[in-house]
Amino acid sequence: MEHEHLYRSLRLPKRPKGKIVLLVLDGIGDITSSCSKQLTPLEAARTPQLDELAKTSVMGRLTPVLPGITPGSGPAHLGLFGYDPLETQVARGAIEALGLGIELQPKDIAARANFCSIDTKGIIIDRRAGRITSELNKLLCKKLQLIEKIQETEIIIQPGTSHRFVVVFRGGNIEGPLSDSDPHTEGEPIRKIKPKFSSIKTNRAVSIVNQFYQKALLLLQEERPANGFLLRGISHTPKIPTFPERFELEAAVIATYPMYKGLAKLIGMKALESNHGIEGQFKQYVHSFDAFDYFFIHIKGTDIAGEDGNFEQKVSVIEEVDKFLPILLKKAPQVLAITGDHSTPVSLKAHSWHPPPVLLHSPSSGSDKLSRFTEINANYGSLGIFQSKFLIRLMMANAGLYDKFGA
Amino acid sequence: MEHEHLYRSLRLPKRPKGKIVLLVLDGIGDITSSCSKQLTPLEAARTPQLDELAKTSVMGRLTPVLPGITPGSGPAHLGLFGYDPLETQVARGAIEALGLGIELQPKDIAARANFCSIDTKGIIIDRRAGRITSELNKLLCKKLQLIEKIQETEIIIQPGTSHRFVVVFRGGNIEGPLSDSDPHTEGEPIRKIKPKFSSIKTNRAVSIVNQFYQKALLLLQEERPANGFLLRGISHTPKIPTFPERFELEAAVIATYPMYKGLAKLIGMKALESNHGIEGQFKQYVHSFDAFDYFFIHIKGTDIAGEDGNFEQKVSVIEEVDKFLPILLKKAPQVLAITGDHSTPVSLKAHSWHPPPVLLHSPSSGSDKLSRFTEINANYGSLGIFQSKFLIRLMMANAGLYDKFGA
Repeated sequence: MEHEHLYRSLRLPKRPKGKIVLLVLDGIGDITSSCSKQLTPLEAARTPQLDELAKTSVMGRLTPVLPGITPGSGPAHLGLFGYDPLETQVARGAIEALGLGIELQPKDIAARANFCSIDTKGIIIDRRAGRITSELNKLLCKKLQLIEKIQETEIIIQPGTSHRFVVVFRGGNIEGPLSDSDPHTEGEPIRKIKPKFSSIKTNRAVSIVNQFYQKALLLLQEERPANGFLLRGISHTPKIPTFPERFELEAAVIATYPMYKGLAKLIGMKALESNHGIEGQFKQYVHSFDAFDYFFIHIKGTDIAGEDGNFEQKVSVIEEVDKFLPILLKKAPQVLAITGDHSTPVSLKAHSWHPPPVLLHSPSSGSDKLSRFTEINANYGSLGIFQSKFLIRLMMANAGLYDKFGA
Repeated sequence: MEHEHLYRSLRLPKRPKGKIVLLVLDGIGDITSSCSKQLTPLEAARTPQLDELAKTSVMGRLTPVLPGITPGSGPAHLGLFGYDPLETQVARGAIEALGLGIELQPKDIAARANFCSIDTKGIIIDRRAGRITSELNKLLCKKLQLIEKIQETEIIIQPGTSHRFVVVFRGGNIEGPLSDSDPHTEGEPIRKIKPKFSSIKTNRAVSIVNQFYQKALLLLQEERPANGFLLRGISHTPKIPTFPERFELEAAVIATYPMYKGLAKLIGMKALESNHGIEGQFKQYVHSFDAFDYFFIHIKGTDIAGEDGNFEQKVSVIEEVDKFLPILLKKAPQVLAITGDHSTPVSLKAHSWHPPPVLLHSPSSGSDKLSRFTEINANYGSLGIFQSKFLIRLMMANAGLYDKFGA
């Protein structure tokens, strides 16, 4: 990892005096558009608490991966956690499994799966099996779960929404990555799975997955329309140096969605439960204040509103965060960063490459003398545009955790 | 060295038409704080000359090393001189020796030293020997200097302030780096010195240093409380490609403090003497105008004021620079950069990671249409935030010293 050694050598052997909090408003970044009177949701929202905080903070914008790259939630968050998202990749199967609440263990091989329809010759005629209902999906997954084990490998099946599910292969000394069985087009047969790199472990994995396929297709034989399934993004869970190991910080995640909780747990953060929405998340932070050095608080609503193209809703989630912010600020962290993992512009209804704004506040942060936390103001901040993976370093510097480099 | 080859291949074979001047106000960067009415010293200072210059200059902010890294003076200046501070490191012993005015030669091994107190069993009971006076320090160093040579290696001892001094080992085909003899804690004996990498030269160095230790401890035997000493940061002076070699510029340093003068000399700059403070430094530049292409002028007062937490003093040094600036501008350099090696915020009383602002002026610099040179204005500048090591390249580009890259 680039520069890792330098930062590590300068890490002072102590815990921070106060708390370090990363507050992620998922997909917060946005762009102006004619539908919203040329305002972004951050600009349109009434945010008296954030405005006050902005005045004594510094700002900038984050490049989650590289210019023009639209990140998925996995790499975007790994960047915020200080991992280079190009060096530390979590396969899609694993991300999907975490999203469905499966507690992945190192070496687990996870695969994204979806039911499909095949004809009598095994040719795919509908890659999504007519988008069957989630109820039918559940029933079919239960059926597939009759396959509990193949040789030494445990099989774990978890239904998602509509035609989507996840298969996890656990144990038996197997390793990925494996190729997709999905030809990504109709009119072709289900593809044979191959190892991406041939080794004893990947060859063993291929054999297990293919045996699973045979048994599973038999179980689905009489079903209509979901008489087949496709696997994608098949890989083992990488062994990632944990966050507490790398940064010497005891860390907790306060998230309501399984994916973010799962990803944070994968890198060694302790998951704290919370109810009652944003208010409950901030209250959980206060409640657990003494037990951790670092808190990752994840707010999902901004991203959902962005994906739905719902401007008013995105504004409303921001205002809700602002309303409950005093709970967090009353038990003030020493260092607070507020940002998004990426942008999810309302007008695009999707993740985008636009750099999310970031606000950083601490007693030694200084101030950029900007009156509000918005995308445009963030352009004028002293942090400039920088890669997400450096945010944790700035937060740790603000917490006084690094020694001077050289005399 | 990264990008070195490209820049070198584009360097036009000529000397600049005018002069290139790097004016360093040490530790100039600052942050707002409630103690100073939310103004930084640059904002609070009355600087009519700088203001005028700002209007026809471009601005930005510098990252001395990496985000969140607080640099020492050595790496911070090496960056401004165009060296990658991670690739070109000067050990602490060498920096300390330069600071005490020792003219280091390549291959010299320098060590930071401090007197300590040991008990009859050789256990350290006070790592700083009760912080003895500088006068006693001088006397003790004189005594130790009785050891003039060990085998082929010359011994040079230079007292600093209080309990601190420097030992330089010159000649005899020796090499560092060596481990510290300082256990960094009391209640333990002085540590045996070892090579960090074993080789004929480092093993020879260890033998010389240990022989020196034996003789020196005998000389101190009857002293109280300073009957021992500890060595740290023991390394040879790296062979650095000189500044005139790398950039094809005849360079001079006008600095009042030995460390900066020494570091500049180490990379091949000619040291010019100057008296009468900042006025004298600018006059020396005018006086030596014809003899050099590049001048590094180092103003120390801003850093001292920052370290002392003295806001008024920092403002006053900036105003003094402003007052005498016409001397420099009357004999105008073709390219002038004004910046700090790092920030030394008054409210932190120490070096910090905050990016110092930089101003660049030349007939071809363009203007960012900013009315003053301040941290906040620098955020709006066209130079953005960039690594210090690229500043020399921008200055040389402004001096017309680089050919076009590609057709």
